[in-house]
Parts: sequence; structure tokens; C-alpha cells
Amino acid sequence: MLVSNMNNIRYLSGFSGSSAYLLITAGNKFFLTDSRYASQARDEVKGCRIKIYTKALDAITGVVNAEKAGSLAFESDFVTHDAFLRLKKQLPSIKLKPLPGVAGKARVCKDPVEMERIRESARLLDLGFEVAARVIRAGVTEKKAASLIESAFREAGADGLAFDTIVASGERAALPHGKASDRKIRKGDLVVVDMGVVLSGYNSDGTRTFCVGRPSTEQKKVYNTVLEAQIRAEERVAAGVLAAYVDAGARETIDRAGYGKYFGHGTGHGVGLDVHEAPSVSPTSKDILAPGMVITVEPGIYIPGWGGVRIEDMVMVKRDGFEVLTATSKELVSL
Amino acid sequence: MLVSNMNNIRYLSGFSGSSAYLLITAGNKFFLTDSRYASQARDEVKGCRIKIYTKALDAITGVVNAEKAGSLAFESDFVTHDAFLRLKKQLPSIKLKPLPGVAGKARVCKDPVEMERIRESARLLDLGFEVAARVIRAGVTEKKAASLIESAFREAGADGLAFDTIVASGERAALPHGKASDRKIRKGDLVVVDMGVVLSGYNSDGTRTFCVGRPSTEQKKVYNTVLEAQIRAEERVAAGVLAAYVDAGARETIDRAGYGKYFGHGTGHGVGLDVHEAPSVSPTSKDILAPGMVITVEPGIYIPGWGGVRIEDMVMVKRDGFEVLTATSKELVSL
Repeated sequence: MLVSNMNNIRYLSGFSGSSAYLLITAGNKFFLTDSRYASQARDEVKGCRIKIYTKALDAITGVVNAEKAGSLAFESDFVTHDAFLRLKKQLPSIKLKPLPGVAGKARVCKDPVEMERIRESARLLDLGFEVAARVIRAGVTEKKAASLIESAFREAGADGLAFDTIVASGERAALPHGKASDRKIRKGDLVVVDMGVVLSGYNSDGTRTFCVGRPSTEQKKVYNTVLEAQIRAEERVAAGVLAAYVDAGARETIDRAGYGKYFGHGTGHGVGLDVHEAPSVSPTSKDILAPGMVITVEPGIYIPGWGGVRIEDMVMVKRDGFEVLTATSKELVSL
Repeated sequence: MLVSNMNNIRYLSGFSGSSAYLLITAGNKFFLTDSRYASQARDEVKGCRIKIYTKALDAITGVVNAEKAGSLAFESDFVTHDAFLRLKKQLPSIKLKPLPGVAGKARVCKDPVEMERIRESARLLDLGFEVAARVIRAGVTEKKAASLIESAFREAGADGLAFDTIVASGERAALPHGKASDRKIRKGDLVVVDMGVVLSGYNSDGTRTFCVGRPSTEQKKVYNTVLEAQIRAEERVAAGVLAAYVDAGARETIDRAGYGKYFGHGTGHGVGLDVHEAPSVSPTSKDILAPGMVITVEPGIYIPGWGGVRIEDMVMVKRDGFEVLTATSKELVSL
């Protein structure tokens, strides 16, 4: 099998760089990279023969031929159609087998070391929300608020951001992915703050919505609907449960309150070496929760021109329930 | 044609969100997205019919059928093999045509508005190098230095980072992609600082190498070799020139000085909506430089266990020469 997704390679070999291939044959594991990563590979890669290449395709062909492989599985959910055509041309006598999600599936349930890394990554978000609550006020731009949050992450030792911090205020809070802009936050705004960091390779992802000044009756109603939906969904998390059932917990609550058409995305997704990975927590998901999975639970209501609310925790699936990894309170905070 | 690469969609429609498809038929342009992006699409997308979908594949099928298309081109250098198989299953009577790099190719030569945005994005790097020169000193961790640089970018209005800032000191400078770590910078270290920001969607990318304290004879020799290689390559940049000829300018200089085996990567790459895009500036590149292309010129020498040096400018290709977009001096700075 040819593994080309970098996070799968990291999971299977320990390598944290950004360009390599892993070839797994019946008896051997070959780690292929270029000279830029030669010394990093020697430091990090365990249990593989390391080969340094000038042209990756030639190196892959060399190993496949030397190992006398008759077929080669590849990550068809990651490899582009062009790369598939190139591989086919290069290896005309080898049967190529599309094998989607295999290495990814191994990653879905986290082992104890991974769990601890994810907990630590999630813990940093609580610091981020503390900073957010301190710096968000009328007159501050969204970008400035995001900048101060991100500095705090770096100071606290984050390797990097899982994604650009979302600070979406006022009518921009209706954009579920509203990256921080030059908009100045105003009194009366709801402000959605969605953040994530990377720590030891593991991502975190969490959201809180703040109100600048005292919330209006409708702001309170929307907020409390999302909060109830988030809690209803979260309480359903346990091993053996359909992910779609968790989604339904949030969706039914929002539907009943009459905001159904303003909740257009899935309730959550897995988090790990990728910030978005399996399982999917959506109405059409066929995934079943299992111990060691880590998912987000993040319903929202987004009303164009008015604003929006999203509340998101990271949750670890346990044998008979769940562990919430985001400690920050979910009560509506008026800043 | 189905366009699914988000930066190509941004280039062709104006949409800056992160989930959408563009379908271009003989007479129409259809912009497809989900409800999360409905209001952003209405604000940003020009010249397209906007459709909001629950399932993207169904929406694509709907348009293809309604428009009575007999064939559908797709971005085979971006679409995964699995997505291709799904599309084939969904549209059994439509001829699918792999069309790599088409929308990307349109983006290679920048128009005047894009040029100005890239110049502004590159200008922010000069600020970053100023901060780097101020904060890098013995006892400071690489992460702390990266954090201070990144804060300055945010303060100055960057939308985000093009990639996690590289601060690689001492023996870590031999890692061409050495992300900032907890290593404390020491006297006598060479420190490679490689940074990039995103501004109005456009990326920048630049590298300088600093010396903490007075450089040794070998440090000076390696530095001056890279500097000469960088200048030799840069001076070859002009419309009509083979990108491989630019690469050779750097490579021959480094070879002649006896460090050839320590320069394992290409000399550069295009920069724009993607931080790595066409053209490729490498020994095997077939690309020919044309006015409006923006490339990096970034040779390096990496000696395992000893350290390394990389110097990188962003350069715009002009009709009869080049414009350097990185203003920071390339002389060896001793901090």
C-alpha cells in the first residue's frame, strides 16, 4: 500500500515533516522523502527503511519492483485523479486498488497518548476564550481581537493554529466561517469566536458566542436555543450511538424553536491530526461512535442580516458516555 | 466545466469562503454553495447564478442535466480519484474530461490589481524581518520569536499566515522546513526565518538567515555562497526565460563552491492565491517565465548536524527583467 496523506504518514511512522511517502509491503515498511527532510526523517521515523529520492515516482516504482508486488493499494480519497493516472502510466503491469480512508480509519479512535495530547490542545482554547472575554469590546476590530488571542496561544506554546481564528461580530456572526475582518465590534453585537490550535501535532476546535453589552430578548432566545441544542446533542454522545442521532439532538431542538432553516451545517466532526476528520456528525452520517473518538458538537443559528450564535465543545467518546474537553462556561457572557 | 478548487473559484467568481463549486457551461456560470455561505455568496459572487445546496453532487447533477451538457471537464490535478468515481457514478451518461491546471494557468500571470495586492502582502514581510532582527537573541526560544513576528503581522492587518512561521536555529537550520520549536537560540547560531502572510487573499513568502553573534569563517563562506547563488538566479529572471535556467543560476554557484549535495530542493515556485502555485522553478521545470508571474528565488545550503542558510526573495517577472518585492537587505546580519 502506498500512503501519501501526510497525517496518515505521521500516524504510521512518526514523521512530522510535510513531504514524504510510505510504502507498506507484506514484509517491509519503506519511508521515502527528499533531501530536505533527510535529517528530520533519521530523527523521527521509526521501524522503516528510509530512502531519499530526487523523483518520488521513480523511488516508488523502484520499491514496488524490488518487492515484486503484483498490486498496489492507494488512498483514493486523497490521491488526485491525475496522480492516479501518472501512477498507472508508471506501473502499467501493477493492479492499482482504490482504498479510501483506510489509514484514516485507524486514526479515528485515539490511544491514551493521543488522548492526552488532544486534551492539552483543547485546554489551550480555554485560555483563548479568557483572552477573548477580556479583549472583545466596542471599538476593537475583529482582527485585533483575533491577533491578541493568537498571540496568547503562541505564548502558551502552541505549535500553530488549526485554522485562522474566526471572530465574527454583528451581522457578520451570520457567516458560520467569518474570518476576523477589519469590522469594529459595536455595542449590542453578538460575537462568534471559533478557534483552534495545534499542539504536538494534535488539533483542537472550539466556539463561544459573546454579547457586547446586555443581550436583547431575541438575542437571548437564539442563544438559549443553541445552548439547549448543544447540550441535548452532547448528552447523546456515547459508544455505540449513531453520530446522526447526536446530530438529531441538536437539530430537533432548533427546529422546534422555529429556527430550523437557519442551521445549515452538520453538528460536528472528528478532530485529531486533522482538524476535520472522521467521524462525521451530520443527519446523513452512517458513523457509529466508539471509545476514543473525539468529536466537536457545534450547532448554530445564522440569521442573514441579523447575526448568529454558535456554541462548540470538543467531546471524547467514552465506553458509557462522554468527556467534555472544553472547560469554558457556556452561559451567555455579556462583555 | 466543474471548478472545485477554492482558490480557482475565488479567482473566477470573487467568493472568498471555503466550500463551493462553480459550473461553467456554454452560456452560463452557476455558483453552488451550502446555506452556511448563502449570505457571503450574495455579497461577493459576481456574474453567476447562485444556487444553495444540501448535497453538492445532487446540485451538480441538476445543473448538468438542466443545461443538457454532454461532457463535463473537471480539475483532475485537484479532484481526488474517489470524487472522480462518485462523479462518474452520478453522471453515467456524461463524458468526464480530465483537465488539469486550466483555471490555475489563468492565474499564473497576475493582473495589475493582483500585482498590487501581492506587493502589499510582500511588504508586510519586511516588517516581519525587522521584528525578527529585534527579537532573535541568545536565550529566546524559536517559538517565542515566531510568536512576536506573527503578532506584528496581525497588528499590521494581515488576514492570516501563509504557513506557520519557520524559525530554525543552530543544527535545526539544516531542516529546510523546520517549524519554530522550543529550542532556545544560542550564541553562534545561524537562524533561518521563513515567513509568509495572506493579505486580501494573496500570499507572500520570504526568508532571511541571521547570525547570533559574529559568524565563523565557515558560516560566512556558506552564507556568501547562498547569497551569490540567490543573486545569480534572480538576475536571470525575465519574460521568455526558462524557469530551469533561473534554477541553474543558483545550482551552478552552489555546486562550484562544493556544496551541491546540500541543496536538495528547487530554487523557487509561483506565489499568488496559493502560496505554492505554478510556475515551478526547478531543474526539471518546463515552464517559461512570462510578464506578471510572481516567483520565489530561494536557494539554500543545509548541512546535517551543522546548520544551514536560505535566502529568499519574491520576484515579479517583467517584460525585460524583474522587480524584487522583498526589500529587506540580504547582507549577513549579526545580532
